[in-house]
Amino acid sequence: MNPAVPVPPAPVFTLSETAVALTLALLLLAPLALAGLALLNAGFGRSRSAAQALLGDLSIVSVAVIVFAAVGAAIAGNSSAAGHTFYLGGTSWNWIGSGPLFLKSFHIAPVQAQLETLFQFLAVALGAMIAWGSGADRWRLSAGCAAAAVFAAVVFPFGAHWIWGGGWLARLGANFGLGAGFLDAGGAAMVHAAGGLSALAVVWIVGPRRGKFPKEGFSTAMPGHQVVYVLFGCLLCLVGWLAWNTAGAVLWAQAPLTALPITAVNTVLSASAALLATFTVTRLRFGKPDASMCANGWLAGLVASSACAALVTPVESFFVGAVAGIATPLLVELLELALSIDDPSGAVTVHGVAGLWGLLAAGFFAPQAGQLLAQLIGIAAILGLIFPVVYLLFALLNRFIPFRVDPDGERIGMDLHELGGGAYPEFVIHRDESYR
Amino acid sequence: MNPAVPVPPAPVFTLSETAVALTLALLLLAPLALAGLALLNAGFGRSRSAAQALLGDLSIVSVAVIVFAAVGAAIAGNSSAAGHTFYLGGTSWNWIGSGPLFLKSFHIAPVQAQLETLFQFLAVALGAMIAWGSGADRWRLSAGCAAAAVFAAVVFPFGAHWIWGGGWLARLGANFGLGAGFLDAGGAAMVHAAGGLSALAVVWIVGPRRGKFPKEGFSTAMPGHQVVYVLFGCLLCLVGWLAWNTAGAVLWAQAPLTALPITAVNTVLSASAALLATFTVTRLRFGKPDASMCANGWLAGLVASSACAALVTPVESFFVGAVAGIATPLLVELLELALSIDDPSGAVTVHGVAGLWGLLAAGFFAPQAGQLLAQLIGIAAILGLIFPVVYLLFALLNRFIPFRVDPDGERIGMDLHELGGGAYPEFVIHRDESYR
Amino acid sequence: MNPAVPVPPAPVFTLSETAVALTLALLLLAPLALAGLALLNAGFGRSRSAAQALLGDLSIVSVAVIVFAAVGAAIAGNSSAAGHTFYLGGTSWNWIGSGPLFLKSFHIAPVQAQLETLFQFLAVALGAMIAWGSGADRWRLSAGCAAAAVFAAVVFPFGAHWIWGGGWLARLGANFGLGAGFLDAGGAAMVHAAGGLSALAVVWIVGPRRGKFPKEGFSTAMPGHQVVYVLFGCLLCLVGWLAWNTAGAVLWAQAPLTALPITAVNTVLSASAALLATFTVTRLRFGKPDASMCANGWLAGLVASSACAALVTPVESFFVGAVAGIATPLLVELLELALSIDDPSGAVTVHGVAGLWGLLAAGFFAPQAGQLLAQLIGIAAILGLIFPVVYLLFALLNRFIPFRVDPDGERIGMDLHELGGGAYPEFVIHRDESYR
Repeated sequence: MNPAVPVPPAPVFTLSETAVALTLALLLLAPLALAGLALLNAGFGRSRSAAQALLGDLSIVSVAVIVFAAVGAAIAGNSSAAGHTFYLGGTSWNWIGSGPLFLKSFHIAPVQAQLETLFQFLAVALGAMIAWGSGADRWRLSAGCAAAAVFAAVVFPFGAHWIWGGGWLARLGANFGLGAGFLDAGGAAMVHAAGGLSALAVVWIVGPRRGKFPKEGFSTAMPGHQVVYVLFGCLLCLVGWLAWNTAGAVLWAQAPLTALPITAVNTVLSASAALLATFTVTRLRFGKPDASMCANGWLAGLVASSACAALVTPVESFFVGAVAGIATPLLVELLELALSIDDPSGAVTVHGVAGLWGLLAAGFFAPQAGQLLAQLIGIAAILGLIFPVVYLLFALLNRFIPFRVDPDGERIGMDLHELGGGAYPEFVIHRDESYR
Repeated sequence: MNPAVPVPPAPVFTLSETAVALTLALLLLAPLALAGLALLNAGFGRSRSAAQALLGDLSIVSVAVIVFAAVGAAIAGNSSAAGHTFYLGGTSWNWIGSGPLFLKSFHIAPVQAQLETLFQFLAVALGAMIAWGSGADRWRLSAGCAAAAVFAAVVFPFGAHWIWGGGWLARLGANFGLGAGFLDAGGAAMVHAAGGLSALAVVWIVGPRRGKFPKEGFSTAMPGHQVVYVLFGCLLCLVGWLAWNTAGAVLWAQAPLTALPITAVNTVLSASAALLATFTVTRLRFGKPDASMCANGWLAGLVASSACAALVTPVESFFVGAVAGIATPLLVELLELALSIDDPSGAVTVHGVAGLWGLLAAGFFAPQAGQLLAQLIGIAAILGLIFPVVYLLFALLNRFIPFRVDPDGERIGMDLHELGGGAYPEFVIHRDESYR
Repeated sequence: MNPAVPVPPAPVFTLSETAVALTLALLLLAPLALAGLALLNAGFGRSRSAAQALLGDLSIVSVAVIVFAAVGAAIAGNSSAAGHTFYLGGTSWNWIGSGPLFLKSFHIAPVQAQLETLFQFLAVALGAMIAWGSGADRWRLSAGCAAAAVFAAVVFPFGAHWIWGGGWLARLGANFGLGAGFLDAGGAAMVHAAGGLSALAVVWIVGPRRGKFPKEGFSTAMPGHQVVYVLFGCLLCLVGWLAWNTAGAVLWAQAPLTALPITAVNTVLSASAALLATFTVTRLRFGKPDASMCANGWLAGLVASSACAALVTPVESFFVGAVAGIATPLLVELLELALSIDDPSGAVTVHGVAGLWGLLAAGFFAPQAGQLLAQLIGIAAILGLIFPVVYLLFALLNRFIPFRVDPDGERIGMDLHELGGGAYPEFVIHRDESYR
């Protein structure tokens, strides 16, 4: 390509009016995943932090969408906001979008560009919520909101531009012949992998909960306080994911209407295979299936499907989910025992690792030559560029807005400490000292 | 207009087949708001009234839709049921619809008229539920159902006809050059303002809960018994509102497909700005953010967006939400301390005031000349016509079906008194005498 | 018909692109019914089985969809997989579908056939979950999964083929002039009636819970442990049902877009009439309305609407729902007292009987001659063919995978026994010995 010619926007295609209407309807259903994930975050924590957990989810959603509307969307760009490039090695690298601040020209953009931004606007809220559950019971509300602002202003938008806004990852195909460029139709990369890696940054920064890793003996099991929230949340997430994966298939994988039913089937099969795999693994490992871990498996199956549901066959989707479901309990245990990572919601594994696995699987199963390499480059970019930036920004933030609550606050619970009242004022709660 | 000529129905426009399908899909998603609001109503009350609260929500929905189908829809009319008029001051005033009873010709009406009636049929259920949470812990189930019947038979249908059925408020533009006539695309007027004002009538009639305002000292704080329900309900409401606001934009504001993504963005931004505003206000006021009040703020932001999400820019929507979020905690406190209003769910403020604020804001930000005056006339009609009628009808009803439970019933809780059993038979509940 | 000519697939019609998009959007909303039903199943059981109840729901969904994708869908067939026939009495009987295993050609099938299979793929999960609530507190997880596999591999697919896949029940009209053939647009037959009858098989096989029918005196009331889950689940089910009934109307009743709003209205009216009927009956019977039974009534109204919402007028739908709502509390009591059936979730009545009632009502109210007879033949097939097969298969299964937990396991609760931990580890639960 002649470097003097301005970069055209991402691969142009025009949605039919029907596709626009369908995508819109699906995008308005997709935020059910926010409701489901909020319940998961709350249920995996302790009863004395449940109100703070849920208020945190709502606050983080609020901060994320506002910050993204103000600045993030401009960076992320869309198919009608070409982006800025630099030239290196004879190739143009489109690294940042060129949208206006404050969604200024949103209403006059082509409807397809509007839908792209709406997808990202809702997706950034989901991505920002992911780390919140990993910091449960010890991460301060204000710090959580600040981290969400950073995620929505910088982290997510750059990645979203690279992948969905016609950026350099999207153009790996056009520029280097690597398949169709980096593919992520449902948000596995910038929602889940980035969310899971920011969860990893958070658990490193805030450290484990008091009593989690006693000086002597094994780590303490700290079961979620409400398994019904956790498992019911999984079913709400299913509906949300069906919407994300199909809407994303239309917007980011140019899927025609006839490719969407199979995308839906694949989404359900991936979650189902993962749940049964985790069920089996935990039963073999502990003699009984572990309900919370099965929820994690189910969710890992959904997350893995985000990358590949639109690209694979039902049998392949079953396989992708099963691998995610086998890996989840093993990895959660490994992270806890080997790396002393205290991740109440398991988001590092469930969103981070399963997201990356889904992206890799999309490369395996895609028919195009070079797709696997494109996916590997994208994964490398997430691990090598996005993750260090997240970690550094969060560590920096931690200096100004300390992430970790003080020990007294942690002991009495986040609800009393941060909100002055609990989620269940009329219910009698166990005074289990081993939990204190 | 020649007074001899029959009034034509409301401004006619024809939906494309795509718009019909989209609106239908959105309307079937919208009742998620019923589920969310039911959880809010239950969560804001006491544990010993939780089953009655939820059974009341279901019963009220049932009564409202049946009564509306039987008589309300005839009064409300739609774009194919012109309505009846009288002549005053040289102008025709269309005051009542002319549909058949029992939805008799529903299936042969044009599909657009069907969708209009479907919107109202679902909206009346939402509007009727609003007052229920304000009467929590003391309002009898049968009286709640009777009030819902009155709301669905008379109150809602007249207003709906005036605003959505080609009635005199809708024709303020055509008849008097006031903008596009009174605008309410998402139900801020007859669902939320009317619902909130009927909540005000209820709290006046039933009076405060026992012990709420002791003879000496300040009012007693009576926190909701389940904050998770409240905050999770907010997220379900978000999905429901996205559907209401976009479906309403198509039906009542003739919004083209290209105007709907911004409507969705505005809905989310309004709720988010409101939540953060309430968060900040309560933190400044009490030292810590108040989780329940933040839920009220979020919901007030959604309610305000009902009127204007289809008409404003994202920045304006942020502003509308932020004002709603600042006002909510202040007004709730003012109503409680200055007017001794005991409103457990805060519906008077959250639905009533925020609904009116949204309608006003729609007038401010609409480009048409005279729109603000049209909105003010509509608001005056709600406050000057609808509210007195609601109050009188409810007060009259109270003579035949006493609203307030007897003191013994209130002491043992609505569940035991009205249903003979509680919502949580296996959980141990605090015997907090100060609550009794 | 000349028996030498191969059977053409089911009545062919072609969906418009708009109808395809709408149906897809509705089908992705429909699984909300899974979330609602899961909450109902958990809420009707005991607190000490709540985690097992929900994990069972997720596991059963997983098993059902995987088994259906692997083999069930091939048996069920669809409008592009004609099916196999035999000849008897001069007529061809299409008894089994001819799809490929493992959804192999799913992506190249016409989109309409894809949607048909997607409908069934999601519906089989709902049908398989129904029995789970009836076996609550004593049915082992692994046995529940095995039963779900049988249901999804054999029971559901054959029925689905007969009714929806162009099988002999669908062709009662073409072959014998019986109306439009057996009609079931929303799943009343193979989801609800078959689900409810498999629940009956389960309660017969596992027997009543310990202490339910003491040697002396009446049966013991064992109220559900969480009425909020139950009633809130009803509202989620409403949204799910709106989607099932409208999507089914398009796919199985060739309903045009203009017939869908009334289908939605009818769905809501049926549930509402049923709830109010149950409310009234239980109030007359016991002096106070019964909240859990009202939930059952509401659900029975939804189930009955599954068969006829697309075929009746609003007044008729009210009637159908009211009958379901009157019958539900009477039948639940009758089954418990006269037949000593211990059915915690009431699924035998709510799904089984109400499903059959809806199918019958569809015959009553359909305008076509012979439709009632077609419905009666279908009902006879469900009772005379499907039910015995379910019972025999489940009884056989029970020999290899015992359904019932051992007495010790039942006493300590399914959570501790099967999962090693409970749903509410931090909440204090009553030690009510009468429950033990």
